Amino acid sequence: MNMYITKNNGKNRKIIDLGNGITIGGSEFAIISGPCAVENEKQIEIAAEALSSMGIKILRGGAFKPRTSPYSFQGLGFEGLRLLKNAGQRHNMKIISEIIDPRDLDASYDYVDIFQIGSRNMQNYALLKEVGKFDKPVLLKRGMAATIEEWLMAAEYIASEGNDNIILCERGIRTFEEYTRNTLDLTAVPIIKELSSLPVIIDPSHGTGRKELIRPVTRAAVAIGADGVIIETHPNPCEALSDGKQSLNFEEMKAVLSDIESIKDCIYKINS
Amino acid sequence: MNMYITKNNGKNRKIIDLGNGITIGGSEFAIISGPCAVENEKQIEIAAEALSSMGIKILRGGAFKPRTSPYSFQGLGFEGLRLLKNAGQRHNMKIISEIIDPRDLDASYDYVDIFQIGSRNMQNYALLKEVGKFDKPVLLKRGMAATIEEWLMAAEYIASEGNDNIILCERGIRTFEEYTRNTLDLTAVPIIKELSSLPVIIDPSHGTGRKELIRPVTRAAVAIGADGVIIETHPNPCEALSDGKQSLNFEEMKAVLSDIESIKDCIYKINS
Amino acid sequence: MNMYITKNNGKNRKIIDLGNGITIGGSEFAIISGPCAVENEKQIEIAAEALSSMGIKILRGGAFKPRTSPYSFQGLGFEGLRLLKNAGQRHNMKIISEIIDPRDLDASYDYVDIFQIGSRNMQNYALLKEVGKFDKPVLLKRGMAATIEEWLMAAEYIASEGNDNIILCERGIRTFEEYTRNTLDLTAVPIIKELSSLPVIIDPSHGTGRKELIRPVTRAAVAIGADGVIIETHPNPCEALSDGKQSLNFEEMKAVLSDIESIKDCIYKINS
Amino acid sequence: MNMYITKNNGKNRKIIDLGNGITIGGSEFAIISGPCAVENEKQIEIAAEALSSMGIKILRGGAFKPRTSPYSFQGLGFEGLRLLKNAGQRHNMKIISEIIDPRDLDASYDYVDIFQIGSRNMQNYALLKEVGKFDKPVLLKRGMAATIEEWLMAAEYIASEGNDNIILCERGIRTFEEYTRNTLDLTAVPIIKELSSLPVIIDPSHGTGRKELIRPVTRAAVAIGADGVIIETHPNPCEALSDGKQSLNFEEMKAVLSDIESIKDCIYKINS
Repeated sequence: MNMYITKNNGKNRKIIDLGNGITIGGSEFAIISGPCAVENEKQIEIAAEALSSMGIKILRGGAFKPRTSPYSFQGLGFEGLRLLKNAGQRHNMKIISEIIDPRDLDASYDYVDIFQIGSRNMQNYALLKEVGKFDKPVLLKRGMAATIEEWLMAAEYIASEGNDNIILCERGIRTFEEYTRNTLDLTAVPIIKELSSLPVIIDPSHGTGRKELIRPVTRAAVAIGADGVIIETHPNPCEALSDGKQSLNFEEMKAVLSDIESIKDCIYKINS
Repeated sequence: MNMYITKNNGKNRKIIDLGNGITIGGSEFAIISGPCAVENEKQIEIAAEALSSMGIKILRGGAFKPRTSPYSFQGLGFEGLRLLKNAGQRHNMKIISEIIDPRDLDASYDYVDIFQIGSRNMQNYALLKEVGKFDKPVLLKRGMAATIEEWLMAAEYIASEGNDNIILCERGIRTFEEYTRNTLDLTAVPIIKELSSLPVIIDPSHGTGRKELIRPVTRAAVAIGADGVIIETHPNPCEALSDGKQSLNFEEMKAVLSDIESIKDCIYKINS
Repeated sequence: MNMYITKNNGKNRKIIDLGNGITIGGSEFAIISGPCAVENEKQIEIAAEALSSMGIKILRGGAFKPRTSPYSFQGLGFEGLRLLKNAGQRHNMKIISEIIDPRDLDASYDYVDIFQIGSRNMQNYALLKEVGKFDKPVLLKRGMAATIEEWLMAAEYIASEGNDNIILCERGIRTFEEYTRNTLDLTAVPIIKELSSLPVIIDPSHGTGRKELIRPVTRAAVAIGADGVIIETHPNPCEALSDGKQSLNFEEMKAVLSDIESIKDCIYKINS
Repeated sequence: MNMYITKNNGKNRKIIDLGNGITIGGSEFAIISGPCAVENEKQIEIAAEALSSMGIKILRGGAFKPRTSPYSFQGLGFEGLRLLKNAGQRHNMKIISEIIDPRDLDASYDYVDIFQIGSRNMQNYALLKEVGKFDKPVLLKRGMAATIEEWLMAAEYIASEGNDNIILCERGIRTFEEYTRNTLDLTAVPIIKELSSLPVIIDPSHGTGRKELIRPVTRAAVAIGADGVIIETHPNPCEALSDGKQSLNFEEMKAVLSDIESIKDCIYKINS
């Protein structure tokens, strides 16, 4: 047995290099943002423009949407990836998007800079093994009922195929509490740092399901040592085809960024 | 929107016909048994012989094993399916086995009579949609953190592609209780009967993780109205490559069968 | 350390003797029924008459109601106990009622035959120790987030003070599933039988929160080896001051009794 | 119905005044520390001296310990309260200690400045109502399986009796995750701030059960807007009679304090 993920036992931390000086896991705090789903060219263009103008360098957007019901909007598929890529190029942003079928990885390769594996697929081992054969970074979300150990073992599935450019993403687990969509396990951040060498980011949007909680939760994410956040934004959250309730508009996102800057500096002083 | 699964609202129950008079969801109580994993020709032959001699008509055995660690035994793959099919033919048994990759469905088609979708893949929509294009029955296990509504919606993903020959299987959900491997939600049986027309069976092996609990839990499964059970058996549970702690030997399985017969008759009298 | 509860390791099962040949934990299957709360003299008289005419010998009724909100109906207190006791005497029934304050045990002593400790108080050690000083049987419900081990340790608190006339009651645990009020852990029954010598009964009313599920769940409770059930009934469930959604009327209760008889006989034959 | 807790809808925040300029809920970040249990005079004296010398003004220590097993150390009772009070007086510290029996409140009144109600008793309504009759602040811990709404309703039980000097304390909820003792729900802090006017603090010791996680979790608690923390410390954690694994020594506590200072200033700047 050869454990790629945990072999450094928290030392020699992995830094994911996306090119153009953009990294995840190093001294920068990574900020990923964009709409839940790519809906049309105009929406993603507006988002890319607004976000890049704030200094955000990684654009998210769902093209293949895993929805609870087969009759809900399923995303634009490859057309969505194309729109996303074009918007990213116009604004000099890196692209992350979720892939849910191992057969789509090849055709998606040129459109994304980071492959995202979602919660529902955290133990979809066929998909994990396949994405492990590529040389592109992978963002692996924690499953809704996955222990931290199972989550790391899922990362190990990817790494064991050769690709250890993995970013972990805590996005909340399922509990009895109904006020929030999930219960965000922020404590997972220092645990992951102890058990593995991988960077770990927080998803306050899915972790809470409520836009008014994103700002305080993001503050906590920075303070507890996360390597970044992924936050849903939309030009007009009320009209979003999915997840509108948890999406910020761009003004709200600016306030979040301002918080991040302040706390990041403070944490940096503590650690230095 | 067209709901295939729930459209009968509990009336006109779906009966899955496997041929040779073997059905799931009708007046018979279906019993599926066999080892967690197909390990070699001798093991599966012994199992098939023992189980068929007790009157069991459906043989299970894992060929593609979704294990938490990539370094655990992953199953024999297609060679496992071949061994399973041969053993089934020798003893006139139907075959069920789990498929975890949509690309394997075509090549598996001739080996199995029921495609099994496991808990970890309950929301692997690429796999669900693909299996929905075949004309073969599908056993869909409930995800570890899936609500009953999400489970039915997963079935709907299969049905919406054209295949409504679906058997649901409750196998326990994740809770804080640590004595059992999972918490078996037997109450799901009458709920599924109320909300859908699909047959539902119980997996006491994974639902409890402890062989000594399989007998009483199976009694309860019959009494609460389940359409069948799937139970792990092994010629020598202590030497099983996986799940030995929850596998019965064949003598223990006979005692379970005897219980099923007694309670089934009793329930039949109540309902008639 | 002296473990009273687990010392027999499942052998020499404890039988709770309530007098007049009424026992819990022996060869009889105990049936406890009555309204969630005692509301007035007429209501409890109608219930006692109806239930005793069906052969039910133990009457339940809440006088001290632990409600989530302090502004919900809190029960009639000692007046409720008095009404309950009188109804029980008129119809030759034993009485069980919940006590939530250690200071009320003395004054309640003459009104009840079994002290009930509710889920919210399973780890109210002051109350457990106090009830352990009395010579009257205690029904101890499992806490909503209590492991089986913690539940047995709570029983040990009672026993360590001298009173080991304890009946355990499984009433559902808290999980993410929202269709049912709680997730009923029927598997707890054979586990308790293995780990302790105490009788264990099932509460399908709180365990499911839905009256239509009580009948199938009760069948399963008998089949899995429970020593009894406690079921909420009300002369007019729609007008109940609490828990109306999960209360049966008396006709529905008769159907449940008929099921119990049939399955009990069947289980008896299996075990003999 | 009269809702005391939620009536201000998050405005006009409640400030708990402990005298001598010590407050909880105002602009200061409250720090409560001390051993899990008062073990003897020397231990609590050493703790009080060390903690007060760091500027900590509120001393915790358990005298009545609610333990899972009746055979575990149950605390020194009133003798423990006396030792705690004396140590507090010598070092000019306020005292908080848990009371588990409504009959002990009167006799404890002179020893403590804050009554603590523990997780196991969050829905012990007899205790809540009784403590609501006193004029002393109450710290109410969240129950292990309590929703935020139930927690606020438990506070309402206290307030409805006249005492609305209530501090809420998030200490982790029960989930399937086994790496930590509980899953700390930090998101509860901004939710409580939205739904009520009460101060809310965090217990990283019980929330994680692991001393190495206390420092990062405390950083997050400050950043997310908590009004304080309660942290277990012990002169010699390895020899603690309870909770040693999650207790800090005083050097470790100093590092935590230093972090709090830095982040507090930063948060203060953000909000001003």
